[in-house]
Amino acid sequence: MTRAASVYPSDRLVLREVGLRDGLQMVKTWPDTHAKLDWIQREFAAGVRHFEIGSFLPSARFPQFVDLRKVAAKAAELRGLHSIALALNERGVRDALAAPVGEIALVVSATEAHSLANQNRGRAEALELIRQAVAARPADGPLISAGIAMAFGCSISGPVPQAEVLKLCAALLDAGVDLIGLADTVGHAGTNDVGALTNAARAMAGDVPICVHLHDTRGMGIANASAALDAGCRVLDGALGGLGGCPFAPGATGNVVMEDLAFLAETKGFATGIDLEAMILVREILATSMPGEQLHGALARAGPLERKGQPA
Amino acid sequence: MTRAASVYPSDRLVLREVGLRDGLQMVKTWPDTHAKLDWIQREFAAGVRHFEIGSFLPSARFPQFVDLRKVAAKAAELRGLHSIALALNERGVRDALAAPVGEIALVVSATEAHSLANQNRGRAEALELIRQAVAARPADGPLISAGIAMAFGCSISGPVPQAEVLKLCAALLDAGVDLIGLADTVGHAGTNDVGALTNAARAMAGDVPICVHLHDTRGMGIANASAALDAGCRVLDGALGGLGGCPFAPGATGNVVMEDLAFLAETKGFATGIDLEAMILVREILATSMPGEQLHGALARAGPLERKGQPA
Repeated sequence: MTRAASVYPSDRLVLREVGLRDGLQMVKTWPDTHAKLDWIQREFAAGVRHFEIGSFLPSARFPQFVDLRKVAAKAAELRGLHSIALALNERGVRDALAAPVGEIALVVSATEAHSLANQNRGRAEALELIRQAVAARPADGPLISAGIAMAFGCSISGPVPQAEVLKLCAALLDAGVDLIGLADTVGHAGTNDVGALTNAARAMAGDVPICVHLHDTRGMGIANASAALDAGCRVLDGALGGLGGCPFAPGATGNVVMEDLAFLAETKGFATGIDLEAMILVREILATSMPGEQLHGALARAGPLERKGQPA
Repeated sequence: MTRAASVYPSDRLVLREVGLRDGLQMVKTWPDTHAKLDWIQREFAAGVRHFEIGSFLPSARFPQFVDLRKVAAKAAELRGLHSIALALNERGVRDALAAPVGEIALVVSATEAHSLANQNRGRAEALELIRQAVAARPADGPLISAGIAMAFGCSISGPVPQAEVLKLCAALLDAGVDLIGLADTVGHAGTNDVGALTNAARAMAGDVPICVHLHDTRGMGIANASAALDAGCRVLDGALGGLGGCPFAPGATGNVVMEDLAFLAETKGFATGIDLEAMILVREILATSMPGEQLHGALARAGPLERKGQPA
């Protein structure tokens, strides 16, 4: 079994907590290192195993990630935790390769305009960076994954043809990435879009897992996650309390709510290994360390349901 | 074509605004008659054609519905509007038959306990009332529909076996109702439940339309609506701003958000005839006339999307 297959087994659903990265990109206050570690430890104890823990970006502009190395080192002490860190340029890749992270996540945008806004480089150069990262990664190094931003529509360029996204998928597979993410960065996707693109990407990717990364901008997040699961996707991103947004994507709002996502997965018969009650309590850390942020989510309000006796 | 088939054509999606009934059951303040009519007129102008406008209940206990006759009369002046009113007992049915409404909605609960709490009568008596209403309805009278409350689980009795619900479906078909509603009164349903029950009920009901009535208690409302549409359901209930809840169902919260529901339908390729921008503006009436109520919904926050060029 490859490293990737052991981290992302094709017969299990993986829910990745991306709140510590995507969730902190646009906030005005953020948890300090202690609170971040508390967040990770408690959500890990609740059953989550995959965490995107930050982004290797210039700390002058993104002070919320200045403690990323320290967070990575502490997260590495939790046995069975898979940590992911974002890198958007050569410096970021170099720093990530030197840090104890399990996966370096890179990005290519589906549209040239967002690629330039987000990474200050076009799509061809973004692909080149991904190829370099794969080449630079030592044999026992981290997984290299790549997310396709704005894969379902772009708030700068408008509609995104599925063929464009699949062309990027092909290039990423050719580059040798371990996982491909399809990101609805600004909440343009509907269930048909998600189903169709997930199916097409999975057919192309074979053993390489496809992750669907959703934002709940227009209330479609959970429905789109359901459509992704129906289409066989087995890796989904979410953020506790629905934190999140891209600073270079006009109109971006929070990620799909992690705890509601876990509840959806349960109702669909997936064994998530997640204790919903315990996960909901982790929101306290967010409420305390980011008092200005609105936390989203229905499950935290209503409480989980006892597991039903009837067949799902 | 039967009256029912002209009101609920099997080849079109019908979204029913139930905010003026289900949405006003638990509120502390409510729109006065003028505001209700304004709400109906403006949402009608935005493209909605089916409105549940109130409940024939004792006005001493439910003063929010005291103006139901007046609202029904005014609504009847809007050409093409189909009005629905709830009736829970003999008196309510008699009053509804004497009012200019297009449909009388009756209820039977999937569980005996909720039936007693909600209607002060058991399921057998509730079915008997429905039979009586069908018998009493004149040839040119209103449609008679029946909703099955707690069809996906009950906050009093717990899980509800699908077979129980289908037994009630059979009894309702036998009674001759024009439409059957499957109600997730307290938000227990997941997408698998909704898909399975919708499929089974549709197979049993033949030409009699199945309506799925969802609450968003645990954030599954839009995903469940998507599952219902995937299973061929063509009548869905929603409430503007996600108002709603059942006063005799512990833990009940708002209906699925009407404007988000309409957006979902659009992304799935349905022609709703609804102007989303115009519909969102109708929320102003709710905000003004019910300042204490929290309005829900993502679309109102983010705004609709221009119709996408790519195939859905």
